[in-house]
Amino acid sequence: MNQKIPQYEDILSAHQRIKNYIHQTPVLQSGGINRILGCDLFFKCENFQKVGAFKFRGACNAVFSLSDDQAKNGVATHSSGNHAAALALAAKLRGIKAYVVMPETSSKVKIIAVTGYGAEITYCKPTLEARESTLDKVVKETNAQFIHPYDNFQVICGQGTASKEFLEEIPDLDYVVTPVGGGGLLSGTVITVRALSPNTKVIAAEPKNADDAWRSFKSGKLVPSINPDTIADGLLTSLSPLTFKIIQEKVDDIITVREDTIIRAMRMIWERKKIIVEPSAAVTLAIVIENPDQFKGKRVGLILTGGNVDLENLPF
Amino acid sequence: MNQKIPQYEDILSAHQRIKNYIHQTPVLQSGGINRILGCDLFFKCENFQKVGAFKFRGACNAVFSLSDDQAKNGVATHSSGNHAAALALAAKLRGIKAYVVMPETSSKVKIIAVTGYGAEITYCKPTLEARESTLDKVVKETNAQFIHPYDNFQVICGQGTASKEFLEEIPDLDYVVTPVGGGGLLSGTVITVRALSPNTKVIAAEPKNADDAWRSFKSGKLVPSINPDTIADGLLTSLSPLTFKIIQEKVDDIITVREDTIIRAMRMIWERKKIIVEPSAAVTLAIVIENPDQFKGKRVGLILTGGNVDLENLPF
Repeated sequence: MNQKIPQYEDILSAHQRIKNYIHQTPVLQSGGINRILGCDLFFKCENFQKVGAFKFRGACNAVFSLSDDQAKNGVATHSSGNHAAALALAAKLRGIKAYVVMPETSSKVKIIAVTGYGAEITYCKPTLEARESTLDKVVKETNAQFIHPYDNFQVICGQGTASKEFLEEIPDLDYVVTPVGGGGLLSGTVITVRALSPNTKVIAAEPKNADDAWRSFKSGKLVPSINPDTIADGLLTSLSPLTFKIIQEKVDDIITVREDTIIRAMRMIWERKKIIVEPSAAVTLAIVIENPDQFKGKRVGLILTGGNVDLENLPF
Repeated sequence: MNQKIPQYEDILSAHQRIKNYIHQTPVLQSGGINRILGCDLFFKCENFQKVGAFKFRGACNAVFSLSDDQAKNGVATHSSGNHAAALALAAKLRGIKAYVVMPETSSKVKIIAVTGYGAEITYCKPTLEARESTLDKVVKETNAQFIHPYDNFQVICGQGTASKEFLEEIPDLDYVVTPVGGGGLLSGTVITVRALSPNTKVIAAEPKNADDAWRSFKSGKLVPSINPDTIADGLLTSLSPLTFKIIQEKVDDIITVREDTIIRAMRMIWERKKIIVEPSAAVTLAIVIENPDQFKGKRVGLILTGGNVDLENLPF
């Protein structure tokens, strides 16, 4: 629990370590969306990252940070989402095994992605307790290294590489906006932005219907996510002690958004930019839509975190 | 009817004329799709073109080719699709009026796009006769120049600029594949490819359920499209005398595809590349899926013609 807080040098090392494995994703703009919203938006397209999400950065850095001895029995995690696929691909690239504990209710699409990268899946009941106890069992049996999706020093460092690329390409942003779920991306982002561009504000976007990070940030006490109910299915998790500490200390603000604005933002990106982003990525644009005065005339960088959607279950 | 056939020099002039107005669209690849299909595919992403389709190239070239005297009363066309929006934007950029005849059954999305670019819409019954007679009336009243969506020398030259960019970026393709509807893009493409890369074959992809170009090409006689019924709603039109002549003389082959393969191809592009393409664009990948032996191990360039889809009416 008492983990070290990453410094920007650790993020630089992470970038060196993973840069030949990841995509340097493009930054796109949209004249149409800028005209509608009256500001200058820059989209960092992690939906084009390998496995379709920024999560590959963190998983890749964590896997390649392990010593040969640590890595020899493989890696393990519990996740029903992008971290599972990301860890599976990273392990495959290093030539080690990946063990993934997934709820038996996981979607077929996600199961196919994870097995497609060669990971071994153990199914469990869809509760946090079942996930954790099943993972414990898997780790005991295999001696694999547990790679937590965000409460992990090297995962946070990997996620911080996205805004390193972003600020090197677009240097003078007024804001960088990321979604917040467990806080790994937000933590890595704020460490990078503080180092490279001290005057740029870092703001997190969170669904009102899963506002545990907002409540934790505002109250100063780590509040868990209880029965979150949002279309942004990548943002259901709670902050961890490590990410909460970083966020509490460094982030400028967390802003919550309504479900209908998330869907409107997602649709705006699909229709105007002809690119596919998942609801969890669209929360960033949603806070700009809901807070026009704050962002008017500003240069705003949005991290579009992923593009993995179930095409058979779209909100439009 | 007896129009001149464009030469590659005309396409070079078109590119000079429009290059500051159009996007030079990116060429993307997909390791995943290449592995599945066993060939080396390059996607020229005209879904990222202005108005979301290659049609802007042709409309823009036609509008800016007019003398000031020809342009002074504006331009007119009949179209329910991408050409209408493309002509409207091109006219707006030149500062002249655009008159568009659209069937009264046109989708709201399309009407909003066309009016959004400032064009004046005249509605008509959804028949070819009504379209043509209404257009005649509009042209008589306004003295606007009629810009046909494809039976037009300068429109064909504009469409040919897409493969100029494509081959300059990816020089040694075995095939260039385009969809065929009215044949404007296919005509411009084959003229460019013959000039720049004589050994590259030019193949057109057409829905089996709208196979008038295939039947015309195989029989040597211009056959009209009768009751086409395909999800590829940009490919419902028939070849014109001008496009048929060019295609008949120069194109290597036309290959038809089933509806289910079009949907499968569209979904493959959405899921693997996280970009939005319309069904009419996906027919290009569909012929590769249906003809694995022909394309195995080849370098194949596909023009992804557009990304305008009705998100409320998707085939998955």
